[in-house]
Amino acid sequence: MTINATIHLDELDLQILDILIKDARTPYLEIARVCHVSGGTIHVRMKKMEDLGIIRGTKILLDMPKLGYDVCCFVGIYLDKASSFSAAIEELTKIKEIVELHYTTGEYTIFSKVICKNIAHLQDVLLNSINVIKGVQRTDTLISLSQPIDRNVQL
Amino acid sequence: MTINATIHLDELDLQILDILIKDARTPYLEIARVCHVSGGTIHVRMKKMEDLGIIRGTKILLDMPKLGYDVCCFVGIYLDKASSFSAAIEELTKIKEIVELHYTTGEYTIFSKVICKNIAHLQDVLLNSINVIKGVQRTDTLISLSQPIDRNVQL
Amino acid sequence: MTINATIHLDELDLQILDILIKDARTPYLEIARVCHVSGGTIHVRMKKMEDLGIIRGTKILLDMPKLGYDVCCFVGIYLDKASSFSAAIEELTKIKEIVELHYTTGEYTIFSKVICKNIAHLQDVLLNSINVIKGVQRTDTLISLSQPIDRNVQL
Amino acid sequence: MTINATIHLDELDLQILDILIKDARTPYLEIARVCHVSGGTIHVRMKKMEDLGIIRGTKILLDMPKLGYDVCCFVGIYLDKASSFSAAIEELTKIKEIVELHYTTGEYTIFSKVICKNIAHLQDVLLNSINVIKGVQRTDTLISLSQPIDRNVQL
Amino acid sequence: MTINATIHLDELDLQILDILIKDARTPYLEIARVCHVSGGTIHVRMKKMEDLGIIRGTKILLDMPKLGYDVCCFVGIYLDKASSFSAAIEELTKIKEIVELHYTTGEYTIFSKVICKNIAHLQDVLLNSINVIKGVQRTDTLISLSQPIDRNVQL
Amino acid sequence: MTINATIHLDELDLQILDILIKDARTPYLEIARVCHVSGGTIHVRMKKMEDLGIIRGTKILLDMPKLGYDVCCFVGIYLDKASSFSAAIEELTKIKEIVELHYTTGEYTIFSKVICKNIAHLQDVLLNSINVIKGVQRTDTLISLSQPIDRNVQL
Amino acid sequence: MTINATIHLDELDLQILDILIKDARTPYLEIARVCHVSGGTIHVRMKKMEDLGIIRGTKILLDMPKLGYDVCCFVGIYLDKASSFSAAIEELTKIKEIVELHYTTGEYTIFSKVICKNIAHLQDVLLNSINVIKGVQRTDTLISLSQPIDRNVQL
Amino acid sequence: MTINATIHLDELDLQILDILIKDARTPYLEIARVCHVSGGTIHVRMKKMEDLGIIRGTKILLDMPKLGYDVCCFVGIYLDKASSFSAAIEELTKIKEIVELHYTTGEYTIFSKVICKNIAHLQDVLLNSINVIKGVQRTDTLISLSQPIDRNVQL
Repeated sequence: MTINATIHLDELDLQILDILIKDARTPYLEIARVCHVSGGTIHVRMKKMEDLGIIRGTKILLDMPKLGYDVCCFVGIYLDKASSFSAAIEELTKIKEIVELHYTTGEYTIFSKVICKNIAHLQDVLLNSINVIKGVQRTDTLISLSQPIDRNVQL
Repeated sequence: MTINATIHLDELDLQILDILIKDARTPYLEIARVCHVSGGTIHVRMKKMEDLGIIRGTKILLDMPKLGYDVCCFVGIYLDKASSFSAAIEELTKIKEIVELHYTTGEYTIFSKVICKNIAHLQDVLLNSINVIKGVQRTDTLISLSQPIDRNVQL
Repeated sequence: MTINATIHLDELDLQILDILIKDARTPYLEIARVCHVSGGTIHVRMKKMEDLGIIRGTKILLDMPKLGYDVCCFVGIYLDKASSFSAAIEELTKIKEIVELHYTTGEYTIFSKVICKNIAHLQDVLLNSINVIKGVQRTDTLISLSQPIDRNVQL
Repeated sequence: MTINATIHLDELDLQILDILIKDARTPYLEIARVCHVSGGTIHVRMKKMEDLGIIRGTKILLDMPKLGYDVCCFVGIYLDKASSFSAAIEELTKIKEIVELHYTTGEYTIFSKVICKNIAHLQDVLLNSINVIKGVQRTDTLISLSQPIDRNVQL
Repeated sequence: MTINATIHLDELDLQILDILIKDARTPYLEIARVCHVSGGTIHVRMKKMEDLGIIRGTKILLDMPKLGYDVCCFVGIYLDKASSFSAAIEELTKIKEIVELHYTTGEYTIFSKVICKNIAHLQDVLLNSINVIKGVQRTDTLISLSQPIDRNVQL
Repeated sequence: MTINATIHLDELDLQILDILIKDARTPYLEIARVCHVSGGTIHVRMKKMEDLGIIRGTKILLDMPKLGYDVCCFVGIYLDKASSFSAAIEELTKIKEIVELHYTTGEYTIFSKVICKNIAHLQDVLLNSINVIKGVQRTDTLISLSQPIDRNVQL
Repeated sequence: MTINATIHLDELDLQILDILIKDARTPYLEIARVCHVSGGTIHVRMKKMEDLGIIRGTKILLDMPKLGYDVCCFVGIYLDKASSFSAAIEELTKIKEIVELHYTTGEYTIFSKVICKNIAHLQDVLLNSINVIKGVQRTDTLISLSQPIDRNVQL
Repeated sequence: MTINATIHLDELDLQILDILIKDARTPYLEIARVCHVSGGTIHVRMKKMEDLGIIRGTKILLDMPKLGYDVCCFVGIYLDKASSFSAAIEELTKIKEIVELHYTTGEYTIFSKVICKNIAHLQDVLLNSINVIKGVQRTDTLISLSQPIDRNVQL
């Protein structure tokens, strides 16, 4: 009985990830230079880590308030029958204001992160998008007043 | 009394953001090609959006479980005296497992997202990193069992 | 992309509002005297602010306990299916003891302010008016024991 | 043992209040005309009801979002020692964004209504005005997403 | 508009009540002696207070643990549809272990006091008497570990 | 190891208690007549049950609203340090509006039943009697809107 | 009225239990030696205590994390209709990851202890085993981060 | 980077554990017979699993109510300062009625299982043992009314 098939990453893999965690747009040649290897090696390693599914892509970090999205909040969603989970997820996926969705321990069945332009937009999303989904009983919303930390975990 | 100094973005700016939201590693020349403008124009627009602070950087998306980080959770933090907020934030910033930190409405004063290797690692972070901070009274942890959605908001 | 169409109010508009916030019954001529403008000017400005919907009317402040209304409370209303919101609002509007009604973040779907003569009257409103509405699952009532502050925001 | 010294209001008093509840700016002569009595009678009755403290003043109803005040919320305030109530009230009275303040049954010691310009303004009020008051332990905020009812009780 | 029809009790009435609050079994003649009036006067006053419904009867105070009733608890009852209140009350009245039942503000619709012989008896009452009633959704039980005060209010 | 020293009551004892549960003022001679025994026997049994502490006294049942006591409520009391329990109980015993006091499982350390004349009286008891006690952190109040059941358990 | 039929255990019985509480695998002859009685006597006493149902068996204590079971948690289960208790229990009994199940006072109808291999396994148990049971409305999960005490009560 | 040093157990090890999970008192020779190996082999394997810390011992299963321990409950313990965890654990370990103690996610810092003789015993443990520990702020108790499942996880 062996429990975890673990993935072996060597020092170079971790060094590459470290550079990309700091700046995901670093060109391969720059990474190669820092790591004292060829650009081809970086390509090989990146491909390996992408094939293994370790690197899932990159995400641009935007200042949402400057784009008119002033409200960042967490919405806990209670389902009236916990077994309607899959169907609810499918519908929730269609709501573009939902940027994260978790199945969690604790009070809520579903816990989501929602980005809206303003209070009126949030009301619209809650009343006309989330609450009309079959199986959603009620929601509980925590509004983020400010977010002093937003970063990747350091390996 | 004029209430909001608003930032004007034209269609090209939004098109550039749209491409980068889909893949933050798209080369400038590729963006230029899609938008039917020169690479120089893209550089100018990117610089403007970075100077305005609209684009804050890029972030690599990693499959944390594959890297041995199996536990993603939300930790609500109660402070014993709400006014110790700034001092607590400073200390919390030093904990590398905290990847997001919000000041929120609702039950908790501080709401954070924490990434750990396993349950034992989480216990260590809670007991030896978060709970020893002066002003932290107690914590309440919601563990993410799975996360079917993780994406940027679509503008 | 311009986000907020903002309303421009000049100093005179704000001075008029300031006077009316302090005493909503101040005669136009008195306002004109204080502002060193003609009564006609006040009429023009008042009409503008009423047309813009900034001034929605005036409200008399009554000492409700002296009129036999001893109980002021906040009633949180849980709906059994959040999507029945519109129908519930329509019915709740018919209950004259409800003086404020909010759609809120947090635990309750609907949060209302209710004024009653006494405990028996409150019981009657809860049991025979609010709870019989289709979609209302249960209510949670916070009774105001005293209200040391009741005023307009100062601009 | 007689329990309540009650105030006797006749039909005319109630008719006057009824008119003022509908529009607090109705001129005395108009009230007199509707009630078929002289303007002097209205003055006498108004003075009586003001002297008895039944009429406490008038309040202008403003569309706060149009004035740039987008956020209306309820803030429950927990005191770390319930006996510090009076001192806390005195400090809270100085915060101009607090428009109502109640001493309530239920979970919170103090329950207040707060009007702010936006989320950033609310954060400022919570962190720098309310939470720094001696005795305030933590706050819990319910944001009003929309308010379909705002009116006086009908007598 | 007169609000409360109040009942007038004189000093003698209150003195009689005071004696009976201390010991409900005091003979009329003893009450008469203490009050310096005739036994007949006491009879008249008692009859008046019983006719007015002020005196509703007497209740023997028993040491329930000594009679084998070890468990005193408060059971909050949630109804699945608040409007089923009357029907639920009728059924709850048939459960002899329920000695008090209140319709309350706060989290529970119905709040009751229940006396049982032991934990097994309580389980039986909850599972087989209370929870089988149509409309009862769930219950929340607070067990009294000791009761240092049990007395009438002093007038 | 014998666990419970139990008290043996025979049929006559239980019959006497049954009569007194129905009407605590029943004269001994009447009890004797119903039970087909002599008045002396009733005296002996009553004395035995009083000596054993089974019968702790009698309590008059008053219609508190008719006496001007309109507010019956349950007050959950949180202590800031659970070990201050004994000292707090001593102080709470001096507050005459508290008619029951329990040490309970669940959220509250102390759970009490309080009878007041009106909302203003309740505010006074909470602010000036209960909350000033050393060790009391905060209170949570459930107001009884009506009480359809108030009776002894049937043996 | 005698309340509890109690079981009499003598000093030897308690001494035997004491030894077995410390180590349930102690051989009968070793118990006999310590108690200064014959092995036959131990057999007689053990049989008596097993027949009386006092000794229900023995349980091996395993280090679950070392066997790949990293997650120990408590799952509170809310039923949508409390009366579906028996049917739900029957289904829950089939889930082998549930090692304890209690019917409890307090917020949850059912409170269970669940042992899983990892977070993914827990999600599977919650979503595909517990939540699909008819009558289960939602669950609330408390994860044990570490367990410093696990022992029998000392008699 | 290899994440988990895993323990390899073969089929025989798991078969031995399976037998002991069903009955921890099974003699080694009986286990050997069932597994078709020698008694010596069982001794070797048992020693290995004990040395690896997989088998931590055995525990006798007692019917606690039959031994006069009628009350099984879960006590959530709130600490006033989360960092006093270690000191509190040390004191809690001395309380023999505590049979399990967990450091948990969720509302409570510490969650324990407590076995008592009766309600009075529980009150004594809460008031005089748990609540007097420095750092314990308050407790919240869930009483088990019945426990239909108590077993080991099946591997």
